[in-house]
Amino acid sequence: MSRATVIGDPRLAFIARLDGAAADIERLLDRLLAAEPIAAEIARPTRLLEAMRYASLGGGKRLRPFLVIETAALLGVPRERALMAGAAIECVHGYSLVHDDLPAMDDDALRRGRPTVHKAYDEASAILAGDGLLTFAFDILARPETHPDPAVRVALVAGLARAAGIGGMAGGQMLDLAAEGRFGAPPNREHDVVTLQAMKTGALIRFSCEAGVILGQASDATRETLRRYGKALGQAFQIADDLLDLEGDAATLGKSTGKDEAHGKATLPALLGRDAARTRLAALVGEAEAALAPFGEAAAVLSAAAHFVAERRS
Amino acid sequence: MSRATVIGDPRLAFIARLDGAAADIERLLDRLLAAEPIAAEIARPTRLLEAMRYASLGGGKRLRPFLVIETAALLGVPRERALMAGAAIECVHGYSLVHDDLPAMDDDALRRGRPTVHKAYDEASAILAGDGLLTFAFDILARPETHPDPAVRVALVAGLARAAGIGGMAGGQMLDLAAEGRFGAPPNREHDVVTLQAMKTGALIRFSCEAGVILGQASDATRETLRRYGKALGQAFQIADDLLDLEGDAATLGKSTGKDEAHGKATLPALLGRDAARTRLAALVGEAEAALAPFGEAAAVLSAAAHFVAERRS
Repeated sequence: MSRATVIGDPRLAFIARLDGAAADIERLLDRLLAAEPIAAEIARPTRLLEAMRYASLGGGKRLRPFLVIETAALLGVPRERALMAGAAIECVHGYSLVHDDLPAMDDDALRRGRPTVHKAYDEASAILAGDGLLTFAFDILARPETHPDPAVRVALVAGLARAAGIGGMAGGQMLDLAAEGRFGAPPNREHDVVTLQAMKTGALIRFSCEAGVILGQASDATRETLRRYGKALGQAFQIADDLLDLEGDAATLGKSTGKDEAHGKATLPALLGRDAARTRLAALVGEAEAALAPFGEAAAVLSAAAHFVAERRS
Repeated sequence: MSRATVIGDPRLAFIARLDGAAADIERLLDRLLAAEPIAAEIARPTRLLEAMRYASLGGGKRLRPFLVIETAALLGVPRERALMAGAAIECVHGYSLVHDDLPAMDDDALRRGRPTVHKAYDEASAILAGDGLLTFAFDILARPETHPDPAVRVALVAGLARAAGIGGMAGGQMLDLAAEGRFGAPPNREHDVVTLQAMKTGALIRFSCEAGVILGQASDATRETLRRYGKALGQAFQIADDLLDLEGDAATLGKSTGKDEAHGKATLPALLGRDAARTRLAALVGEAEAALAPFGEAAAVLSAAAHFVAERRS
């Protein structure tokens, strides 16, 4: 298809940009996770490196790095810097999948159409691969290639640690286990489900949008704007995910489905009904688009991302 | 005992300083791990917070924070800053114990005389508590209270990530699993054992000494000096640990013993014999002391620490 066609259709432009981000992130992670140890490292044990590479390379839509790259681009940040921050966030995302898939957690055998890390390697290697990727994310952010100004790098570290930690993703995973009823009757009101999801998936998606603003050293107002976009996008992502778990096909998704219902886990589609959940989803896409209004046409690809997230089938 | 006695005997002075560091770290971690969420956190789920507190409070010699505090004190760094960095390193140490104790790893039921985290809670909570503590370490380092200069904070993040990651502690844990023969015949020559230990326990102990230098913004020569001290101390610590595993008493140690022999794991005492290992240990204490020579009497407590590490019985 011609370049004019791609530019003309924001959806196609979005897909081209998403694919471009994924290819660049793949190349960067492949380079960062090379066999040779770097300064202050003693060695990179082969089995751990391979498990970390297996967990982070060759798969995934790379939505979070895409969000870093595109919000950074809005603010004139060089792409190489956004790629470094995006690679760090992707390491955190990858670690969370490896640990969530463990037998003691969600006990999943399949991820992105391949055996999960503890199936392809073993449980101990999977635990360590997750630990290694989480630690590596902060190593990446601390490097001068991410941004020459240490104040920017440390702001990224602070933001990522808080989005991923007890008050964000890790805390959300604990609430998710509780929502299965593991630790007594689960608190399953709508408010609880919204909090759980804001933490478990929302915090990292929202931070991906803020990372671009941190790299761009933009105003607090701009950060607030893109935080609002990221927050709506994160909620939309989760509702779409829950609908896919209800209605999707395991082969297309590359992971098992129907698990929430089997676990009696409260999701918004389960609490509100599918139609109301779809209405909520559409409203969130509208919110995400509205947040982007100050940027005009420059943010068209981020608007398209909101539609993609809501409408995806895998 | 009088203050004069304490000052006169470096060993007693050391014990007083180690206890003081432990008490201050306990108070600081208790405050940092409070129930209330802080900026950009959505909530601190109770069960995860409790498991993180269980894993990090109320136990441990706090040797690593002590090393940060004392090397920082040599260079005139305010104690509050060293405590922040020490608390971060202690979170990483605590996470490593929680994950190492998991059934898929060393499968330990007892730690510091109490049930391990997966015994006191459950396996999923233990995995998440470790993840939460590791992430929290970087949160702590990124805060302005750790140091007003972002360049110092980001240097701490970089150093900790590299000491804890694939090229340091996490990599060392993988080599340790391999040394049990899990993934085929283990490479158990002396060189392999030294590398394993330099990574598994050495890297974090060495970094604890370097952290004081980073906080003090001292010269590269000073960093090299304290790195040499930290490296010798780390090796001494591990040989003493291996001897304790062979000869120690589980009740005194608060953890099980005799595990290395049972697992057929190569240690320096096993490879060289206990007497040769003791000779090596004494030589390492000498090396650690020699490295401190440029600091004269000011480093007496760090010298005493080297003796303590070599001679400890628990």
